[in-house]
Amino acid sequence: MHASPQAYEKLVTRLKKTALLSSCSAVLEWDEQTYLPPAGAEHRANQLALMAGITHEQATNPEIGNMLQELEDNSNFGEDSIEQANIREARHEYDRATKLPRRLVEELSRVATLSHHAWVDARKTNQFQDFLPWLEQMIDLKREEAAAIGYEGNQAYDALLDGYEPGATSDLIEQAFVPLRNELVALVSAIKDSGITPDISILTRKYPVEKQREFSMDAAKQIGFDFNAGRLDIAAHPFCSGFGPGDCRLTTRYDEHHFPGAFFGTLHEAGHGIYEQGLNQEYYGTPVGSFTSLGIHESQSRMWENLVGRSRAFWDHFYQPAQTLFPEALANVDQEEFYRAINDVRPSFIRVEADEVTYNLHIMLRFELEKALISGALKPADLEAAWNEKFSEYFGLTPDTPANGCLQDVHWSAGLIGYFPTYALGNMYAAHFFNAAEKELGNLNELIAKGEFTPLKEWLNQKIHKQGKLFRANRLVEVVTGETLSHEPLIGQLQNKYRELYHL
Amino acid sequence: MHASPQAYEKLVTRLKKTALLSSCSAVLEWDEQTYLPPAGAEHRANQLALMAGITHEQATNPEIGNMLQELEDNSNFGEDSIEQANIREARHEYDRATKLPRRLVEELSRVATLSHHAWVDARKTNQFQDFLPWLEQMIDLKREEAAAIGYEGNQAYDALLDGYEPGATSDLIEQAFVPLRNELVALVSAIKDSGITPDISILTRKYPVEKQREFSMDAAKQIGFDFNAGRLDIAAHPFCSGFGPGDCRLTTRYDEHHFPGAFFGTLHEAGHGIYEQGLNQEYYGTPVGSFTSLGIHESQSRMWENLVGRSRAFWDHFYQPAQTLFPEALANVDQEEFYRAINDVRPSFIRVEADEVTYNLHIMLRFELEKALISGALKPADLEAAWNEKFSEYFGLTPDTPANGCLQDVHWSAGLIGYFPTYALGNMYAAHFFNAAEKELGNLNELIAKGEFTPLKEWLNQKIHKQGKLFRANRLVEVVTGETLSHEPLIGQLQNKYRELYHL
Repeated sequence: MHASPQAYEKLVTRLKKTALLSSCSAVLEWDEQTYLPPAGAEHRANQLALMAGITHEQATNPEIGNMLQELEDNSNFGEDSIEQANIREARHEYDRATKLPRRLVEELSRVATLSHHAWVDARKTNQFQDFLPWLEQMIDLKREEAAAIGYEGNQAYDALLDGYEPGATSDLIEQAFVPLRNELVALVSAIKDSGITPDISILTRKYPVEKQREFSMDAAKQIGFDFNAGRLDIAAHPFCSGFGPGDCRLTTRYDEHHFPGAFFGTLHEAGHGIYEQGLNQEYYGTPVGSFTSLGIHESQSRMWENLVGRSRAFWDHFYQPAQTLFPEALANVDQEEFYRAINDVRPSFIRVEADEVTYNLHIMLRFELEKALISGALKPADLEAAWNEKFSEYFGLTPDTPANGCLQDVHWSAGLIGYFPTYALGNMYAAHFFNAAEKELGNLNELIAKGEFTPLKEWLNQKIHKQGKLFRANRLVEVVTGETLSHEPLIGQLQNKYRELYHL
Repeated sequence: MHASPQAYEKLVTRLKKTALLSSCSAVLEWDEQTYLPPAGAEHRANQLALMAGITHEQATNPEIGNMLQELEDNSNFGEDSIEQANIREARHEYDRATKLPRRLVEELSRVATLSHHAWVDARKTNQFQDFLPWLEQMIDLKREEAAAIGYEGNQAYDALLDGYEPGATSDLIEQAFVPLRNELVALVSAIKDSGITPDISILTRKYPVEKQREFSMDAAKQIGFDFNAGRLDIAAHPFCSGFGPGDCRLTTRYDEHHFPGAFFGTLHEAGHGIYEQGLNQEYYGTPVGSFTSLGIHESQSRMWENLVGRSRAFWDHFYQPAQTLFPEALANVDQEEFYRAINDVRPSFIRVEADEVTYNLHIMLRFELEKALISGALKPADLEAAWNEKFSEYFGLTPDTPANGCLQDVHWSAGLIGYFPTYALGNMYAAHFFNAAEKELGNLNELIAKGEFTPLKEWLNQKIHKQGKLFRANRLVEVVTGETLSHEPLIGQLQNKYRELYHL
């Protein structure tokens, strides 16, 4: 017996409708973080909770379960076919969604919105205590979520992780993180011992905000972000949100006396945006028309931000315009000096401003703390102390304020727990992909130095973006690169680059 | 037998949920007109159509009909009680909504979004023909809507009008418009014959946009708009959208060489915004927590824009700051000269920039044309010619371009047909209210000249805003002023003001 010919199309129609509805919430969330007036926070929380409830209701409609069952039992789409991938991932999402009671979904949405605003205020006033009650509520809700979804062994955390990086487990992540950490610690230590300290004060000279905006947008455009189908706005915690075909929103934040923040932040978000804009619109609303995992998403942003944006070649192309635009800051700075400044490696408080080398240590710290929060081994009330202690252990520094410590990231306030490790995975994926692209396209740095970003962008479009969720992350790495995930490409690239920079 | 005690609360819960959902669409619509990238138009249309469909489904759930029936049959809330008003207006909305098939609602939403973008382009390129196919579709859909809703006599138009001004009919409107038109024509003619022509060139000097923004926002704030619970952004066709408690969005547009556009536009939208912000939040989501009609809404915007903003007293307070902020334009202009310029009466093409006196003629023209489009007496293909002919008849001028003619307003592209007359009704209501406020508060101009806007604002809060839909427009005028609607207060105010200005 075969599934009726219409069964698959019926499923697709359902999925598309849910995706469309969910994209409406994305607009409300974007506005919440960019333009919402302060007094509107509670109403927005109510709006988002209602939308989350309705979307959840649609995503868990038993008819979807019936359609999936019929297709799983009676159809035989080829392995690695689009249909088979859509059915597989729709099942994954349906199972995750149906395990959550609607009450919990709405409560999570409501608390996330209010908690986000409490976090913004607490970060401003540097009062961890003001955020604590919200964090406690959030951790309770996320533990409840993990229990509802279920997990193997005793890692409740894995149930959450699977929502961002399907198929990943904390054990697998630790297997990659441990050797990476060893190598990184050795590299950071060697860099410190080199005694070389680039002059980073040139990056905190005066860079007028309007010109930063112009320069960042121009770079985002040159690497391939389409502003006819997107925007760049300001948000306290920068993010990228793909609303759907033709509409992808980037955000950044400007500091007149800190050049790298907005510039590399914009390249980073543009990398995400290029992924979103490169998805196959024909399949919009189905898994194959969506990104495959947050780790793969991050591989795209980190590639443009770091492997491209912080390369010497990139500044062969961009340094002269930068000098022209920021004469006050850069007129007497030569390119090599600038290049060394933007690749300065040194322990610092803020993850999103960290260098490529120490960045992954920031992630490991969060990964360990959030695992402990979810397992119950760490109480939210003890988070600030635990953060500071572990930070001091990893970085040899103690955060001077909560805003420079456990209040710096938006994630926990928004209920994004299990999300952080995808950043380090992204760095590892990016290294694999960059090496593979280079094998096929020849010396990428030669292209980059000429401002020719299109070959790399189109390679990514073809190999990664257009695939959507056809393959899960680990499998995608294998299909695209012929390799299995390893920390080696990343550490290899970092060693090559920084041994030269620091004469190691 | 009485309705169960919970019946009313159940109805309120339902209504609030629908209002909340509808407010989510308002966010998407606001974004569409302020920040949407061009390529995102189609996706946004899909989003809004889906949201309209879901909202319509909720608003027409037969359970609401059952609840209403039970309450109507078995409850005896007092006349003019909040409960009775909510039931009355919920019935009105439910009946209107249930008469529309979901297909039509979704189609109207989808076409409105696409048509809006076609209008933006057509207006830019001055090609009425490019907009025509969309107008034709829209008129067909609106005729279908009118037929579905039903109407008395042969005025399909009334079915549409009732959606904006419940209880109004085209016959009633004509009864007010005819004497108003006669008086206005006489006044315009007398002004022309006076031979006095203020120097309006001072208004098209250089007014830097950033300073216009600052000055407009300051004025909006002083008259009582709360920016902690709202924003001001830029849109091609300015509007105000109250998303719900704590969140009301104003928009305006700036022209460096036209001061009145953004300034009085902002005062106008702020007047709408003050109404929205003054609604009784306790009843948010029910009719009594919502504005009563578009005409009443417009009475608030026109009052602040014209009766306050274009008064001599207003500029006793604001002229010195204006001179300080715009020295290049105003240093050598005395206040009286400025006052005369902003009250210049002269036929012109653009409604939103028209003076107080000719403004109502713009409305009458649209009212007649849209009635003819809906009755079928006028084909959309003939609209441009009909517009130009009638315009020439009323104003003694022929529009030089479609952008200055039938393409100038957003309304028809967005399906807002039956909406225009509410602007002239608003002017009439505003005149009633202003006179009544003055009776109770004493000489308003004395307060305004001192920058004391709070008494008037609080009077409006109490008498009009907090009432929401407790009374319909005509009744509200009676309750607040003790008068029945008439053109006399408006024409009286205009005659007083302009006879003095033009020495008539």
